[in-house]
Amino acid sequence: MEYVSDFEWKDGIKVSELVDGLGEVGFQSVELYRASEVFCKMKRENAKIFLTFTSNMVTSGLRGFFAQLIRLDMAHIIVTTAGAIEEDIMKASGEKFAIGSFNSDDVELHEQGINRVGNLEIKNESYANLEAMLQPLLGELYKKKTRWSVSELLYEIGLRLTDENSILYQAAKKGVPIFCPAITDGSFGFQLYLFQQDHKDFIVDVVSDFGNIIFATNHDEKKAVIALGGSVSKHHAILSTLLNGGAELAVYMTTAHKTSGSMSGATTSEAKSWGKIKDESDIATVVGDVTIMFPLAMCRSLDELSKEDLIKE
Amino acid sequence: MEYVSDFEWKDGIKVSELVDGLGEVGFQSVELYRASEVFCKMKRENAKIFLTFTSNMVTSGLRGFFAQLIRLDMAHIIVTTAGAIEEDIMKASGEKFAIGSFNSDDVELHEQGINRVGNLEIKNESYANLEAMLQPLLGELYKKKTRWSVSELLYEIGLRLTDENSILYQAAKKGVPIFCPAITDGSFGFQLYLFQQDHKDFIVDVVSDFGNIIFATNHDEKKAVIALGGSVSKHHAILSTLLNGGAELAVYMTTAHKTSGSMSGATTSEAKSWGKIKDESDIATVVGDVTIMFPLAMCRSLDELSKEDLIKE
Amino acid sequence: MEYVSDFEWKDGIKVSELVDGLGEVGFQSVELYRASEVFCKMKRENAKIFLTFTSNMVTSGLRGFFAQLIRLDMAHIIVTTAGAIEEDIMKASGEKFAIGSFNSDDVELHEQGINRVGNLEIKNESYANLEAMLQPLLGELYKKKTRWSVSELLYEIGLRLTDENSILYQAAKKGVPIFCPAITDGSFGFQLYLFQQDHKDFIVDVVSDFGNIIFATNHDEKKAVIALGGSVSKHHAILSTLLNGGAELAVYMTTAHKTSGSMSGATTSEAKSWGKIKDESDIATVVGDVTIMFPLAMCRSLDELSKEDLIKE
Amino acid sequence: MEYVSDFEWKDGIKVSELVDGLGEVGFQSVELYRASEVFCKMKRENAKIFLTFTSNMVTSGLRGFFAQLIRLDMAHIIVTTAGAIEEDIMKASGEKFAIGSFNSDDVELHEQGINRVGNLEIKNESYANLEAMLQPLLGELYKKKTRWSVSELLYEIGLRLTDENSILYQAAKKGVPIFCPAITDGSFGFQLYLFQQDHKDFIVDVVSDFGNIIFATNHDEKKAVIALGGSVSKHHAILSTLLNGGAELAVYMTTAHKTSGSMSGATTSEAKSWGKIKDESDIATVVGDVTIMFPLAMCRSLDELSKEDLIKE
Repeated sequence: MEYVSDFEWKDGIKVSELVDGLGEVGFQSVELYRASEVFCKMKRENAKIFLTFTSNMVTSGLRGFFAQLIRLDMAHIIVTTAGAIEEDIMKASGEKFAIGSFNSDDVELHEQGINRVGNLEIKNESYANLEAMLQPLLGELYKKKTRWSVSELLYEIGLRLTDENSILYQAAKKGVPIFCPAITDGSFGFQLYLFQQDHKDFIVDVVSDFGNIIFATNHDEKKAVIALGGSVSKHHAILSTLLNGGAELAVYMTTAHKTSGSMSGATTSEAKSWGKIKDESDIATVVGDVTIMFPLAMCRSLDELSKEDLIKE
Repeated sequence: MEYVSDFEWKDGIKVSELVDGLGEVGFQSVELYRASEVFCKMKRENAKIFLTFTSNMVTSGLRGFFAQLIRLDMAHIIVTTAGAIEEDIMKASGEKFAIGSFNSDDVELHEQGINRVGNLEIKNESYANLEAMLQPLLGELYKKKTRWSVSELLYEIGLRLTDENSILYQAAKKGVPIFCPAITDGSFGFQLYLFQQDHKDFIVDVVSDFGNIIFATNHDEKKAVIALGGSVSKHHAILSTLLNGGAELAVYMTTAHKTSGSMSGATTSEAKSWGKIKDESDIATVVGDVTIMFPLAMCRSLDELSKEDLIKE
Repeated sequence: MEYVSDFEWKDGIKVSELVDGLGEVGFQSVELYRASEVFCKMKRENAKIFLTFTSNMVTSGLRGFFAQLIRLDMAHIIVTTAGAIEEDIMKASGEKFAIGSFNSDDVELHEQGINRVGNLEIKNESYANLEAMLQPLLGELYKKKTRWSVSELLYEIGLRLTDENSILYQAAKKGVPIFCPAITDGSFGFQLYLFQQDHKDFIVDVVSDFGNIIFATNHDEKKAVIALGGSVSKHHAILSTLLNGGAELAVYMTTAHKTSGSMSGATTSEAKSWGKIKDESDIATVVGDVTIMFPLAMCRSLDELSKEDLIKE
Repeated sequence: MEYVSDFEWKDGIKVSELVDGLGEVGFQSVELYRASEVFCKMKRENAKIFLTFTSNMVTSGLRGFFAQLIRLDMAHIIVTTAGAIEEDIMKASGEKFAIGSFNSDDVELHEQGINRVGNLEIKNESYANLEAMLQPLLGELYKKKTRWSVSELLYEIGLRLTDENSILYQAAKKGVPIFCPAITDGSFGFQLYLFQQDHKDFIVDVVSDFGNIIFATNHDEKKAVIALGGSVSKHHAILSTLLNGGAELAVYMTTAHKTSGSMSGATTSEAKSWGKIKDESDIATVVGDVTIMFPLAMCRSLDELSKEDLIKE
């Protein structure tokens, strides 16, 4: 039996001390601590870790943190959406995203050529620069072969980037595959379409990539899922672990609630119906904004794992 | 200036009377009434209507309502996810989904071969039946040609169904294209993968389908978006109207909030930054469970449009 | 075993038909139908019905609906907060509340002397009129006696109103007590304070009112709670039924989720720990905006109860 | 113009470093950083700080943190609900609250005499002990005088406690008044009622306490509100600052959203309509679980203020 314990600040308090304290505070703070513990287990038990996130998290400054996690060997398979790919490339190309407000005047922003994502802002110019870069790149790849799976495409792009904070760069360097089942759903898709207009035999083979994600792990390996936000990214990772017998470890972080029956709000309790989860201590669902919850829980885990020599820069 | 007005029940009250009353109640009830008015405008102004929904809504009994809307010419382009396609086909094949509880014992359900989606349940058997049906169908289509866009595939499946309540059936009958940018993200994707293993030249061409959705409308046409829930479906419809100059009319219904910066919670205020929305009366965002909000608002609109002879069975 | 059933619109559809259909749709629509059934049970089983709501619902047009429910004998004990009392009196005095927007310019509203409550607006003038009316009224009551429980005070005010749509008026007429455990938390409290400055022996006795709510029901009676929104109102009704052995029937409607451990988000599952709820069919929790969920579910119940001759105008 | 900046973990990272980083991440993380800055401003500008919280936060381990904030002179006026008072006293008397699960079997808990608050648990025994202690205490106070304001009562109780982690103890020691406008809404209220049965002239004067909270500050003083959660506590603090010309600084933290028009979800934007807030930098609204958001933001503020010698143990 664990008991609630009064939290107290001390000067210069570390994140790991705060999260340890939160473990005895109550409500979501307890779930956050549990999530941090499951992250540690993933590494201690040498699991293959699926990390999934929606594109808005790459709009945010979590992008560099994801890249660091790949570098630290804390993420072995990435699943995300087209916007995340686009924005990682933009940032790797030097584009800057501004911090604005949730209550901006959207008509005014439009006149200034600015696109709002919550309280963040992306210039039209950043999209134009991305587009200018993608066409020659696709031309280059097309010369190699005409039929590409999405993860192959993203690997080739990653090889061509030079930004240490880039997800695609680090993934290419570490051999971490990036899956993006809805690759056409964005500016990236439009560029692929334009390219195909002049190269009719250019094929993006999403079906073969499904094989790639299935064979990225296997029944014998321990599997773990870190699902940040919902959407196709979360579902795709769960689906591919399921086809390999189910994940043994899972953390879901989301602002969605289970009451609407959506994938975004689906809890890790469902994970038990995958048939592989045996122990409550192996799963955690944290309700809250990922931009706060995830770095908070994961920083403590990294501190712990560093002490145990399980991660190294 | 409009004023709050006391709502009162009368015996045998109609949905349209209730929604008219809600328009003067306050908070989300006012937004719901506004949404119903925007639905009417879509038809009155002869707009091309994009209807998007997530797969859980097809798990629910909204599925037949979506089919009815296609039949009534209230939806001209559908965007959804793989689960929605699968479950529409399952139901068209006679599979029944049970109503359960949000608080089921998931371990027990797993032992019974039951998959939970919120308070609804799908049997493993229903998936097995779907799979048994898809392989011969893919074989049949493969004989026609080897390279298919997703919307072509779904059209062919629709042609082969016979259920009046099926989305795919009604869409095929009415020539309404169904787009599914993440078609591999589901059991359907696994079947495509299995088929491709034995037919290496079988291609699902998602890139060409991006062209199809762009050319499903144009700059001159008035465009409307009904986005139910978030995810790739919502984003894809907004993206393709944007490439045609932006939608003039839009209703978003979702349980997500804008505070997380996610697509699911993005409001119609952003729609103004598309540069085409001029008038507050042309957009509405309703926060709440779609399974209640949508039939409530839309039933009133259909009653109104029926009076105006703008829809006919 | 119940199954999901496709919902279909028919021309001139009634609310009761819609809600019946929602019962087989899924997610919150199923919970809404269950809530409507529990409302019917409350009357069929002749329960003492506690109705609780927060002040924003009286800002909205639900105010007249609550008055109607008292008139129809569907609410026997009211628990609410000070704002609800104030605004019911304002409206009974002819004040009008405007419908605005959630995204108003609050600085501009302030300059116009307008207070915003979500997308509704109350003028400073309405508060001034309330205050002008309360001082002489308190003087009148003070002449009768110097020590008043809150429910006695509210009864006396109700007697002096003449608006059929007023909660206080109908409650006084029907002998339905109104409890307001935080009576000083509002403009009303300030008026009480001003009056007490000149009448030091004027006492509002909240402690004796706790006795009144406990003795408003008893162990032998069947007890039901309809809690709309959370806060002190919800907690107070649950507490007083608990002291009488617990409620047998309960419906909670709220936008809050259980994940924060708040009273607003507490579910009816907790009701089982009261020790009186035996059957799942006697409780329901609906997540969603009360201004839509409540009239929708309750209108169907009233239609049903009217057919069964259990309510009469 | 500020820009999004990639967040990166470093070994042994401190809370203040994390929160500084979050300020450039995006979405709620930016709002959290802003909140932390407003907390610092409250102290730097020597404001009178109102701290409000709901009872579930005292169920949690935030209770000792609130006591510490009073000790550190970071909270000058407390507003809360009856449950918070009760549970602070229980804990000061040695009662322990267990950490459980949001998905407990409530029927089983009831049989064990355990009351669930989210994922925390309070034994019936703890309530019984509280009750046993309150009657003699009330007897003692009654001998002094028969008419008590709530804040006087709570001060006297605080004087009798000896727990450094107790809110009431620290408040009594520092002369910080505790207001509880709905004091009867809980076990405490029942004890007051029982006592009054045998002491008819025992009065809890809530009206005079309204005067006390109004005169706890004044127009000339700078005023700040930290509202954690919603309910009567939040409303009461806002109301009493308003009657003194409005607060200059405000942070709201809550899981509620503004879409329902509730006080719990009301934003600091409304604060601008109070007429005193001139600058966006003086207000912040953070959406998320208070048990995580508050210690995270406040610990950074305390680190900063400690460096500036503005707080001392």
